[in-house]
Amino acid sequence: MSESDSQERIAVVLPDGSELDVDAGATVEDCAYEIGPGLGSDTVAGKLDGDLVAKEEPVYDGAELEIVTDGSDEYLEVMRHSAAHCLAQAVERHYDDVDLAIGPPTDEGFYYDFDNLDVDEEDLADLEAEMEAIIEEDYEIEREEVSIEEAKERLADEPYKLELLSEFAEESDTVTFYSQGEWEDLCAGPHVDSTGEIGVVELLEIAGAYWRGDEENEMQTRIYGTAFEDESDLEDFLERKREAEKRDHRRIGNEMNLFSIQDVTGPGLPLYHPPGKTVLKELEDFVEDLNTDAGYEYVETPHVFKTDLWHRSGHYENYQDDMFIFDVGDDEFGLKPMNCPGHAAIFQDQSWSYRDLPIRYAENGKVYRKEQRGELSGLSRVWAFTIDDGHLFVRPDQIEQEVEQIMDMITDVLETFDLEYEMALATRPEKSVGSDEIWERAEEQLESVLEDHGHEYEVEEGDGAFYGPKIDFAFEDAIGRSWDGPTVQLDFNMPERFDLNYVGEDNEEHRPVMIHRALYGSYERFFMMLIEHYEGRFPLWLAPEQVRVLPISDDNLGYAHRVANEFDDFRVEVDDRDSTLERKIRAAHDDRVPYQIIVGDNEEEAGNISVRDRFEDQEYDVEIDEFKEHLEAELEEQRTQPDFLQD
Amino acid sequence: MSESDSQERIAVVLPDGSELDVDAGATVEDCAYEIGPGLGSDTVAGKLDGDLVAKEEPVYDGAELEIVTDGSDEYLEVMRHSAAHCLAQAVERHYDDVDLAIGPPTDEGFYYDFDNLDVDEEDLADLEAEMEAIIEEDYEIEREEVSIEEAKERLADEPYKLELLSEFAEESDTVTFYSQGEWEDLCAGPHVDSTGEIGVVELLEIAGAYWRGDEENEMQTRIYGTAFEDESDLEDFLERKREAEKRDHRRIGNEMNLFSIQDVTGPGLPLYHPPGKTVLKELEDFVEDLNTDAGYEYVETPHVFKTDLWHRSGHYENYQDDMFIFDVGDDEFGLKPMNCPGHAAIFQDQSWSYRDLPIRYAENGKVYRKEQRGELSGLSRVWAFTIDDGHLFVRPDQIEQEVEQIMDMITDVLETFDLEYEMALATRPEKSVGSDEIWERAEEQLESVLEDHGHEYEVEEGDGAFYGPKIDFAFEDAIGRSWDGPTVQLDFNMPERFDLNYVGEDNEEHRPVMIHRALYGSYERFFMMLIEHYEGRFPLWLAPEQVRVLPISDDNLGYAHRVANEFDDFRVEVDDRDSTLERKIRAAHDDRVPYQIIVGDNEEEAGNISVRDRFEDQEYDVEIDEFKEHLEAELEEQRTQPDFLQD
Repeated sequence: MSESDSQERIAVVLPDGSELDVDAGATVEDCAYEIGPGLGSDTVAGKLDGDLVAKEEPVYDGAELEIVTDGSDEYLEVMRHSAAHCLAQAVERHYDDVDLAIGPPTDEGFYYDFDNLDVDEEDLADLEAEMEAIIEEDYEIEREEVSIEEAKERLADEPYKLELLSEFAEESDTVTFYSQGEWEDLCAGPHVDSTGEIGVVELLEIAGAYWRGDEENEMQTRIYGTAFEDESDLEDFLERKREAEKRDHRRIGNEMNLFSIQDVTGPGLPLYHPPGKTVLKELEDFVEDLNTDAGYEYVETPHVFKTDLWHRSGHYENYQDDMFIFDVGDDEFGLKPMNCPGHAAIFQDQSWSYRDLPIRYAENGKVYRKEQRGELSGLSRVWAFTIDDGHLFVRPDQIEQEVEQIMDMITDVLETFDLEYEMALATRPEKSVGSDEIWERAEEQLESVLEDHGHEYEVEEGDGAFYGPKIDFAFEDAIGRSWDGPTVQLDFNMPERFDLNYVGEDNEEHRPVMIHRALYGSYERFFMMLIEHYEGRFPLWLAPEQVRVLPISDDNLGYAHRVANEFDDFRVEVDDRDSTLERKIRAAHDDRVPYQIIVGDNEEEAGNISVRDRFEDQEYDVEIDEFKEHLEAELEEQRTQPDFLQD
Repeated sequence: MSESDSQERIAVVLPDGSELDVDAGATVEDCAYEIGPGLGSDTVAGKLDGDLVAKEEPVYDGAELEIVTDGSDEYLEVMRHSAAHCLAQAVERHYDDVDLAIGPPTDEGFYYDFDNLDVDEEDLADLEAEMEAIIEEDYEIEREEVSIEEAKERLADEPYKLELLSEFAEESDTVTFYSQGEWEDLCAGPHVDSTGEIGVVELLEIAGAYWRGDEENEMQTRIYGTAFEDESDLEDFLERKREAEKRDHRRIGNEMNLFSIQDVTGPGLPLYHPPGKTVLKELEDFVEDLNTDAGYEYVETPHVFKTDLWHRSGHYENYQDDMFIFDVGDDEFGLKPMNCPGHAAIFQDQSWSYRDLPIRYAENGKVYRKEQRGELSGLSRVWAFTIDDGHLFVRPDQIEQEVEQIMDMITDVLETFDLEYEMALATRPEKSVGSDEIWERAEEQLESVLEDHGHEYEVEEGDGAFYGPKIDFAFEDAIGRSWDGPTVQLDFNMPERFDLNYVGEDNEEHRPVMIHRALYGSYERFFMMLIEHYEGRFPLWLAPEQVRVLPISDDNLGYAHRVANEFDDFRVEVDDRDSTLERKIRAAHDDRVPYQIIVGDNEEEAGNISVRDRFEDQEYDVEIDEFKEHLEAELEEQRTQPDFLQD
């Protein structure tokens, strides 16, 4: 393709797929200038084969190159990295003898870790002011390549940097430093051109963190901050953060007695208390109904398997570091990280005809994955979680009908919870198993389902798994956060590994295609998302306590219990505490009960009730049957908010 | 108590609690003669503190002594031990160079293990005939005490016996031999007086068995047999055995596709296939309804816990050999052998008032117990099983009401499955935790419940656990086999260990009493029992497939499907295979489907159905609605047999 005849020319691939020929040794910035002088002067950094690098980095032959400017998605990441440097510079201006560790950008901002720093939340305002001064002073941020020897001298007082340096020295003869004003840091970059280009900064909190994330090492002081291009973006972020904190599922989970994670029982291993288990059971029943209507059959597989199974499935080779593995006698056993091999083993235990397919197995299957202890958090990162798993064994000609049914089930679930969603089709990657024929046939069928579904979708070329194409869902919660959603995954590999067969109409043995699917994914993550999505104010059908009867005085206690009996098809409680009505209303509100029934002498005489909802609206003289009928309908239709008083 | 003034007198305790003074060195037989000459001459063996011993064994001071005669329960065990010797003698008469291993009595007979024995089922008749000859020859069975040295010489050709001998030598200077005719064996006894006293014998089967049950050792040949006092007892036993084999849950489980246990997935770890999971789900739902009506709340606890929990509960000290324990990083974790500590941890996570109690937690909780690999069998002995577990936290004054409710639930379950039951109260043992007051109060309440229940019960004095008294159920299945049933267990220990509290009316902290209870016990064992009890012919409400529609010809296929749709509230299938009606009926019978609906041209024209049940009775011209109504009632009332045609 290249027209060059020189030995010293190389080619990089631009985002539009075209190739750019440049001299060997050309940097990212050189390439940008080659494309156009405007782009050249706007260049902040580059991406080489997906990795963010400094614009001074040389490109290499065959690399996929993207130029990062202040209009790119990655710009914020670069700017936040520079903001982290400003933080470290500010700290060193205010405190002596601090040891610097590392300071990377994150998804939501940046942090910097320090040792020998005695600082508390009250000091953050001063540090923030100092950072703003550094930004105001608009220091040029300069990159410098130095020898390992010289780096060692410059970092003589920084033990953590020296530790990093000795590792870099194994790979390269030089390292880079970035300096701004009187301050410099060992750093690979990239950074913006000057501190003045950093928009607005905010320091958020102080936390402890182990050096290199290892509990065996020293605990250091981590300061978290964030940076945005302008004040309004920062305000939006802070508002979302406040909203997220208000909705934090760990706090609400504790307030509502949904679950606990205790030191004595172990990390990442939630215990569901009765109210939490009630919500989980409703979620389980909801998918059970969907599954049963769709012809799924429930199975139950062990949580522990001989590792022979994981060798056969391939998990042992590819996944063993994340598995809990132990010996029993001479055999090795492992907690299951996935449910699919167990379902394949059940399928394999029988012989099948083409007329028996599709076979659809469902299981609320607990899986175990050894996450880093430091990464565990509430229900969002756990060691043990339950998947509403489903595995289908289908003929190649049944892919379309089955995937269509699954898509309907998934969208049914997401819409029930008022979750907006997006879809993407991930197609065949370069390395893959399975014939051209099966891949083409499968991708055609998936596209056809997506077209028929009438919902826009993206195609992510080459992003499928090596064993098959898939459709990924992503959804957005009530405060605009995006979540990875359910997945429908075709699999041409597992049937090979388990030697799964069915006898076709031609009397020959054929391989079925396996489909992996889940509607929620992990119950734990979905439950966590729901708690935060609804701020614990669950729809009636999910609420652990649906109705609470509040007698105005002790005289009405008998009537309150008779009323409660009328509602015994619902999860109803009577607040029989010796307390004022006002307090009882407050308690029911704090406990996030959808409806309160208030009964006093008037109601008792009339044989009716007053109904109050969690929006604080109240209606008097309601007939018991009328309210009961409303509740039944609200439950049946799985409405997301109590609407007896909102119609 | 003793009137003796001699130094050489000792006392033993007889079954009626009285003491018997004898000379030190007196044997079991001496004691029997001391009681009376008739008993002395009838003595076959003795029990010292519960252990069966030879009548020649000396008694020791303070021992509880029982005399075993041919009228005792233990007589059969002694006789079967002697029958095992006859088997070995017969084998050595027929085969050269056989090495003897061990030959104990068992619950159902006896076995003897041999090495270097090449024998198959066809040879058993000859061996049995030889045993009968030995019995006919009526050899005196003689006991002889010999020195270790002499024993070594006598056993020079018996490597396994020498291995045992070297262990005995560590504990004693002498061992005993038993001889009959030309044959002798190293053996502690006891035995009957002569081979003529052995009634009837039958050899049952040949199996492989590892020396000392250890898979690392040689595989030996085990011959199983049994012996009874007379022919009719043997016939009864063989009849029960044939009946049990016909009902073997492993075979029926495979035929009905209920579950599998596979080499690749691991031992003692059943996989439930869709039909099996359907039965399990019905069983789960049944107890869920009972639990919910009784005010139980479901919780969910992890299967894996940090061993800190097992230290706190005491399981680590007392149970660790039966637990699956493994390290993760620096911490130790274990699969749970019991659900109670997890439930205690949930209770402990909150503060409670006396008004909150009783608290009743329920969970279908999987537990893991490391049984010997060789002991694992089908669903009856597994590594992982689910308990329909319940734990209550109650005030001491609530024991009676709660236990009464539990007893009603248990008897409800047992009666639903037509199981006859017996009950026993096990009271305070010598070593126990908890005050006199709590024990007395608890035992009184349990007795009161048992009295009110109106069902006979036994009192097993001192047989309670160290941590509390209990009520045990035992029940009998359709072929008269007895099974350990549900248990209600009070626990004064766990609340101490977990420091569980509630605030009493006096505003002081008090300890709740914990109650452990299960209605089925282990689902696996109960399911296995049900399969054998019903021979796979489950009641309608449990049957994996409840109704099968059989079209007489392909012409009736459309009508068959329309009829099946009418029954879509039930688990219904259409047999659409290209086959004769006779074959379809046979298949439905083999699959143990409670009802068949047969539809041909006549039914199609009349718009009705023919109904056939699994007793092979059939009725024509049945209206669809009539049969549907019957099915609903049969289901609702959980009738144990299909009775549409049996009324």
